[in-house]
Amino acid sequence: MPDTVTAALVVIGDEILSGRTKDVNIGTVADFCTDLGIALSEVRVVSDVEDDIVAAINAVRARYTYVFTTGGIGPTHDDITADAVAKAFGVGLPVNPEARAMLEERWKANGTEVNEARLRMARIPEGGTLIVNSVSAAPGFRIGNVHVMAGVPKIMQAMLEAIAPTLEGGAKVKSLTIRCRVGEGSIGSAFGRIQDEFPDVKMGSYPRMGSTSVMTELVLRSPDEARLALAAERVRAMVAVAHANAGLAEEVEAY
Amino acid sequence: MPDTVTAALVVIGDEILSGRTKDVNIGTVADFCTDLGIALSEVRVVSDVEDDIVAAINAVRARYTYVFTTGGIGPTHDDITADAVAKAFGVGLPVNPEARAMLEERWKANGTEVNEARLRMARIPEGGTLIVNSVSAAPGFRIGNVHVMAGVPKIMQAMLEAIAPTLEGGAKVKSLTIRCRVGEGSIGSAFGRIQDEFPDVKMGSYPRMGSTSVMTELVLRSPDEARLALAAERVRAMVAVAHANAGLAEEVEAY
Repeated sequence: MPDTVTAALVVIGDEILSGRTKDVNIGTVADFCTDLGIALSEVRVVSDVEDDIVAAINAVRARYTYVFTTGGIGPTHDDITADAVAKAFGVGLPVNPEARAMLEERWKANGTEVNEARLRMARIPEGGTLIVNSVSAAPGFRIGNVHVMAGVPKIMQAMLEAIAPTLEGGAKVKSLTIRCRVGEGSIGSAFGRIQDEFPDVKMGSYPRMGSTSVMTELVLRSPDEARLALAAERVRAMVAVAHANAGLAEEVEAY
Repeated sequence: MPDTVTAALVVIGDEILSGRTKDVNIGTVADFCTDLGIALSEVRVVSDVEDDIVAAINAVRARYTYVFTTGGIGPTHDDITADAVAKAFGVGLPVNPEARAMLEERWKANGTEVNEARLRMARIPEGGTLIVNSVSAAPGFRIGNVHVMAGVPKIMQAMLEAIAPTLEGGAKVKSLTIRCRVGEGSIGSAFGRIQDEFPDVKMGSYPRMGSTSVMTELVLRSPDEARLALAAERVRAMVAVAHANAGLAEEVEAY
């Protein structure tokens, strides 16, 4: 099992950048990666401009283990993701017989006419393999380390389920949250010193606005459970002192 | 008034990439830009790694009119946005007297102790000007075309309000939505031909899953109202024909 498996997500679509559609796929893909022990390391949202999509895909596919894309694989002229991916890999974009068969089977079942626009959805870059779409039949595809998925959240989720068994995760990262009843500013320096002692345990601090009982959540993450427990013990002791200094009960909640 | 004013957003934070926090700032900044006639053209989500933040900021600040960043300006060791921006601009990061005064005024009012961690929030890159934070006092800052804001949505929104009067928008883009009672695949080719005739009107097609009455929304966008109206007339006629071909009433809803 490799130590670190990384990924990037490229979200494609003017509708996200204009604010018309509020993205929910970033959060879904982030959770999906974390569950599989894959470190989602970068996300880019790009517009429906071929050169920009090509540049984003080429930048991230060279750097990360896996690349996921969402959006731009429908039947209309603004759906240009397959074109951009084919260009990024320098391959052709013919109608794929297997994709066409999947679509025609669905179209036959519901009496939908085969036309030029719909057949756009059967164009798959040469060398690509299909990602099954259980929702609306039009498949996504995988080429190299790039996984091209639909933008509609339900379809995107179904495609993630379809590709999950093909992905190799890394060492799973465990996480632990410690709750403080004081603000970040009261523990910042001491917390930083513990981080320096445990470079292998990633520590983050997150203020909770509008809460009086829990003011800060400290999140510790590591694939090594023993080191995580050791670091957590140190952080809990630090928080107990900060509580006492603020005249609060020393008790520290963790989960 | 410039014809095209563009922007990029850099969202900074491991908590977004791990899925622990679901981003809502992208949608807020997208709406904000659209309202001001600024074309949000790219978003990047990067982790709390200094070199990655520096690289993202330098890539986008050279390319777009404005850059916005969210996240990483609190008092703990994982808040490294100010450090990264100073590095990107090749300037120092001293404690800024004005920022310190803002913070100390608030701290005095609520009896908060001044310490090393809290003073991190007063470090502002040389040459930067402050962005007022009406919510929790710790300011953001602007240097060059880069606007550095908090990650907490309420604070980020307050900072957007603070900077809005300093931003120059471009020609405001009008938008119009036409509703189809047929799927995208039934209008794709004809819709693409209208797009070819109107390169100055951006046309997008968005399926509506789970709806039987409205199956596709066609969105037309242009700063030129006359051209938008002309294009919309063509698209409405096309949709009326598609409705008739599907045995539906020709009536087309637009808004």
